[in-house]
Amino acid sequence: MALALEEARAAAARDEVPVGAVVTDAAGRVLSCAGNEVEARRDPSAHAEILALRAAAAARGEKWLPDCTLWVTLEPCPMCAQAASFFRLRRVVFGAYDPKGGGVEHGARIFAAPSCHHAPEVVGGVRETEAGALLRNFFARKR
Amino acid sequence: MALALEEARAAAARDEVPVGAVVTDAAGRVLSCAGNEVEARRDPSAHAEILALRAAAAARGEKWLPDCTLWVTLEPCPMCAQAASFFRLRRVVFGAYDPKGGGVEHGARIFAAPSCHHAPEVVGGVRETEAGALLRNFFARKR
Repeated sequence: MALALEEARAAAARDEVPVGAVVTDAAGRVLSCAGNEVEARRDPSAHAEILALRAAAAARGEKWLPDCTLWVTLEPCPMCAQAASFFRLRRVVFGAYDPKGGGVEHGARIFAAPSCHHAPEVVGGVRETEAGALLRNFFARKR
Repeated sequence: MALALEEARAAAARDEVPVGAVVTDAAGRVLSCAGNEVEARRDPSAHAEILALRAAAAARGEKWLPDCTLWVTLEPCPMCAQAASFFRLRRVVFGAYDPKGGGVEHGARIFAAPSCHHAPEVVGGVRETEAGALLRNFFARKR
């Protein structure tokens, strides 16, 4: 999660909403790291999670990541949660909860849907305070 | 929708789940066309909708597509529906309904969620029979 927080800080420095993500394998090796790139790419789907998942699968040359963990500083939105399911991730560990935009513990609760074929394990609230402070400070500066 | 169906047929010929998508602007001009590329890219997030939305935004150099319509042969999944909301699309027109995997009229019903900031207009069932037959034939051949 330290690496994901670094990615989030780097995103903030680029004036992106500060969210960072890392994918690790069963041995804990880092397969990919990414920060949010929505503004840089002018692509609202370029969330840190999507970029990290794609990069991890590309690094392996495989479509699925069944032994892998996604570490992300903010509760994934429904788009990213559904992507995590499609990549067949083993586990999603996130930092701050997102009652407004989250799709794991809030809103669509993607993994709990009867139509969800693959639900990763979920651990929320890991280094929540740091992850949340990054976001709060970013939006406070914007206002 | 004829173009989206062509993209779906081309996807089937590449042994991809046959879903096609097209983005048009307010004048009806085609900004992008894409078929499903999950297998070719080994990327489970490479749904036709995501590829077409990204390509349309890139073609314009803009992050949002507020005057645009996404034409897609199958009801979008929650990932693609959330992406359509993030791209601030005006309208989503889809072919076949997807009671199992859909996230617009089924399951997560992304656009109806209180946390959904932008809900495109939705028209479902356009050339539904053709779109559905393509999928049924594809999966029947697989079995």
